[in-house]
Amino acid sequence: MRPIRIEDPQDPRVAAYLDIRERDLAGRQGRFVAEGKVVLEMLLAANRFSAESVLVLENRLAGLFWTLRKAPADLPVYVAASEIMDRIAGFHMHRGILAIGRKGAAQPAEALLDTLPARALIVVLVGIANHDNMGSIFRNAAAFGADAVFLDATCCDPLYRKAIRVSVGAALKVPFASFTETIGFTAALDRLGFGQFALSPRGQTGIRDAKGTERLALYLGTEGEGLPESLLARLRTVRIDMAEGFDSLNVAAASAIALHHFSASRT
Amino acid sequence: MRPIRIEDPQDPRVAAYLDIRERDLAGRQGRFVAEGKVVLEMLLAANRFSAESVLVLENRLAGLFWTLRKAPADLPVYVAASEIMDRIAGFHMHRGILAIGRKGAAQPAEALLDTLPARALIVVLVGIANHDNMGSIFRNAAAFGADAVFLDATCCDPLYRKAIRVSVGAALKVPFASFTETIGFTAALDRLGFGQFALSPRGQTGIRDAKGTERLALYLGTEGEGLPESLLARLRTVRIDMAEGFDSLNVAAASAIALHHFSASRT
Repeated sequence: MRPIRIEDPQDPRVAAYLDIRERDLAGRQGRFVAEGKVVLEMLLAANRFSAESVLVLENRLAGLFWTLRKAPADLPVYVAASEIMDRIAGFHMHRGILAIGRKGAAQPAEALLDTLPARALIVVLVGIANHDNMGSIFRNAAAFGADAVFLDATCCDPLYRKAIRVSVGAALKVPFASFTETIGFTAALDRLGFGQFALSPRGQTGIRDAKGTERLALYLGTEGEGLPESLLARLRTVRIDMAEGFDSLNVAAASAIALHHFSASRT
Repeated sequence: MRPIRIEDPQDPRVAAYLDIRERDLAGRQGRFVAEGKVVLEMLLAANRFSAESVLVLENRLAGLFWTLRKAPADLPVYVAASEIMDRIAGFHMHRGILAIGRKGAAQPAEALLDTLPARALIVVLVGIANHDNMGSIFRNAAAFGADAVFLDATCCDPLYRKAIRVSVGAALKVPFASFTETIGFTAALDRLGFGQFALSPRGQTGIRDAKGTERLALYLGTEGEGLPESLLARLRTVRIDMAEGFDSLNVAAASAIALHHFSASRT
């Protein structure tokens, strides 16, 4: 690995890093940005996505020696002084470690379902549009060994820079796929033998009493409106009991409690 | 309640709202900023802090009619057009609802301890310096009926604007106090009959097997370093079991799981 020094913020070799914040919103043509050492290690280790290049602040390079040893020998590693790096990224990059990954072709939900083992825990997200929540849910999914995450068409992208960062790289590790039509997807899970549980403040069963199934799908909806009634009617609804007068739990916190519960209630 | 129209961003009556982001960092002399309708309602309902004034975008005023009916009759309600409000706050205020609250005199930890009932669940925070985590922990504390939160001297301020917002107002509801010296505080809890549990990845007991006590203190430390060994040696340590190869859980997610567990294991 021979680091390549970048002296000019307009150098075409680092074009993918230009104005990172602006580009997040506009999308980036099949690429994503990984930030920080832990996320970079996950990108290189997880083997789900390929890294296209790395851009590192010059004083961070030594600390990445062992991390970059695990990278393919031909992975370009660009190094820049702080001032150049800030001008490339378009804001002050105090972390100083960036990488560009390639998304590759999106896997259809059906194909991902086919890869799941006989004993499987999956998360189904409907309308999760906040990148913090998305990242946190992926982090919890990884922490409790979920096999995959499935997203409806109204969810935000787990490979958005902030979602990856909040997930501490779990978005690069836990397989995910999008489905187009929720009721059809639910029917497919039924056929595949999944017990289907939905978290809802008005759930019929307290989660402590909810007994898991060998194949288990956990549905999570948006905080405000929750999962649509037409969907809840088809699922086993589970609630997390709370103190009176405060029935509000963040969806990521709820996912932690539910995944913790179901990761064990199936053993 | 007669709204007072503000036409000039430099009007001294809205001086407390000037350049909100900058002032967050500099502190604001015993005041805090509450943002959004839900948080404003919590401020007015919780009675822990007094509101000094409210600043509302003109098109949001009608929607606050019932909220402001609950406010003291002499609470100044300032109304501004979008452009004026943005110039006051120093950035684009799309939510359009702000209030200034007074912190009042800080309650000593000992005084707050004296108010706790015979059966009590409290949270003890050591080194929680991230406002997102602080806000989320307060939200979870409220959701699971914790009676109070105690903070060591290295924790950030729960009344920072973002912490209040993330807590959805719980930071204005759940009583809290700071202590100066952790080991001394731990000894005081001992004398008061608290079972003291610390979450730690290397905890001795899996949390599912941890039986709560009638008076229970849950200690949470920073994500990176965790609670100091000298402290862990004095407490019952509890771990949250995770999937192999990913032993990383956000401290707020961990607090949700632990509070959910202990809120019931004591009944």
